[in-house]
Amino acid sequence: MKKILIALETGEAEKRRFLQTAEAAEVPCEFVFTTPGEVTPGQVAEASFIVGNVPPRMIAASENLDVIQLFSAGADPYMVPGVLAEKTLLCNATGAYGLAVSEHAFALTMMLIKKLHLYASSRAHACWQDRGPVTSLTESTVLIVGLGDIGLCYARLVKAMGARVIGVKRRGGPCPEGVDELVLTAEIDRILPEADVILSVLPSTKDTVHFYTAERFAAMKNTAVFVNCGRGDAVESEVLLAALRDGEIAAAAIDVCETEPLPADSPLWQEEKLMITPHVAGSFHHASIYKGVMDLACENLANYLTGRPIVNLVDFSTGYRK
Amino acid sequence: MKKILIALETGEAEKRRFLQTAEAAEVPCEFVFTTPGEVTPGQVAEASFIVGNVPPRMIAASENLDVIQLFSAGADPYMVPGVLAEKTLLCNATGAYGLAVSEHAFALTMMLIKKLHLYASSRAHACWQDRGPVTSLTESTVLIVGLGDIGLCYARLVKAMGARVIGVKRRGGPCPEGVDELVLTAEIDRILPEADVILSVLPSTKDTVHFYTAERFAAMKNTAVFVNCGRGDAVESEVLLAALRDGEIAAAAIDVCETEPLPADSPLWQEEKLMITPHVAGSFHHASIYKGVMDLACENLANYLTGRPIVNLVDFSTGYRK
Repeated sequence: MKKILIALETGEAEKRRFLQTAEAAEVPCEFVFTTPGEVTPGQVAEASFIVGNVPPRMIAASENLDVIQLFSAGADPYMVPGVLAEKTLLCNATGAYGLAVSEHAFALTMMLIKKLHLYASSRAHACWQDRGPVTSLTESTVLIVGLGDIGLCYARLVKAMGARVIGVKRRGGPCPEGVDELVLTAEIDRILPEADVILSVLPSTKDTVHFYTAERFAAMKNTAVFVNCGRGDAVESEVLLAALRDGEIAAAAIDVCETEPLPADSPLWQEEKLMITPHVAGSFHHASIYKGVMDLACENLANYLTGRPIVNLVDFSTGYRK
Repeated sequence: MKKILIALETGEAEKRRFLQTAEAAEVPCEFVFTTPGEVTPGQVAEASFIVGNVPPRMIAASENLDVIQLFSAGADPYMVPGVLAEKTLLCNATGAYGLAVSEHAFALTMMLIKKLHLYASSRAHACWQDRGPVTSLTESTVLIVGLGDIGLCYARLVKAMGARVIGVKRRGGPCPEGVDELVLTAEIDRILPEADVILSVLPSTKDTVHFYTAERFAAMKNTAVFVNCGRGDAVESEVLLAALRDGEIAAAAIDVCETEPLPADSPLWQEEKLMITPHVAGSFHHASIYKGVMDLACENLANYLTGRPIVNLVDFSTGYRK
């Protein structure tokens, strides 16, 4: 008897879909449906297949656990030594977030280049104030740092608006659709001075922590805008704030911070050139994400029960999907 | 001797371009270069060809004036009886604004559907607050009211993002690129309930004043967003505010108001669901506008001096380009 723990908000339709997946596989399963907030250590300890971001400490390297399918793209808390047993397969939900996060990042990009963050700030002060010239993506070079699913979706959006698109990747390969030029991460310093827009969608790994140093911001155009919809620890708050205050870049938008929620007394809130959204780009705020996670979870449950290879495995050496 | 008055900020390159246009036409001309703020009644009274939005009262139906080439798309102040002599040709700058205004309207649209106006408001209060579900243009029907140059450019942008696009026009005709369906203005009430996004780029004419009535806002989806980058008098401020407060629509963004500048004590500033920009979409804030106006002015100056037909004439019965 396989014990399947679904720690994800589900309605009747979703519950039925999981049950039908097990029936189709003809493997007897016992299901527990709960949520990440209500799950108990006992439920986690017994489970052989988990769907959902249960608290990592509850897993305690359980030898019962064969597979955990996260609903997030980032998997960093589950890669900490001692969380998962050696045999446990860790799967992220990369692929479910492409549309929603790329569109959020794209909306932030348009906001910054049209100075809508400044007009929003003026609005808060009831101030009819002209903020001067704007640019267009038709004349812009957009650098996408982290060319996974989200980065590629974003590439197609800015390309459709007429931008020149440069993708930054760890490893070389053929240039994907929507990308004009591919640059290796190791060579980013060469290309930074060319970018009008820099989108960061880096995951959190040992190589990406504080990736955007003061030197890198100084190398950017003074007119450049920086958007971070990846992980907050790619940029130290102080470094970003200094880059904005010193005019190294023109504006920034972040959906992620080093400390979340961002404390009310953080000086980041006071910087007019900075737009902040509270880590919502990849929440279940657009139906495509929940649908993508459900599709993946059911696919991997079927794979697990029928002995087919599990998909979306996380590579522990990089934090990315293998 | 033709007297040409250029009431437009010009550099040496632009001055030279006007002079060369006259030389090429082999017609002796006397040029005066000034700005709309510094122009004098005497300069206006003598001019046979004017480039620029000189104060209408200065024109005083001057019989010397053959052509006035505005740098704006809207021509309403020049259509008031008594401003222009019967013989004077009135030309607007429709065509110069397509890229800049459509991109501004598009950025506002993305801002609203991703709730960035609410996050900007939260930011002003240092508040890390989740504002809930968002939508995507991939699943949206976008209604473009006023299918001129700006409307058509905007159509291509939202179409590239995956939207279904309905154009609203006074007169029928073939369906232009980027538009899925054409609806007559007279039939707008039938189609309003289908729209997720309504963009208004109507000019100011007797038919468009207060076009968006309380009844029309009530007919829209409660989840719809409304963007006005046309003329402010298409919507009464009180009607828009009531539609937002009563939840007839989810959000709005306006680049134009009935009274500009919008007074600091206007209740519009206080409405969180409303984004306001200070009539900047079509300012000379993007280089494409100034270039487009210059191209048009030189083309029409050449047309005038060589007896070819003047382009971009305003139709006094509609306020649009003929």
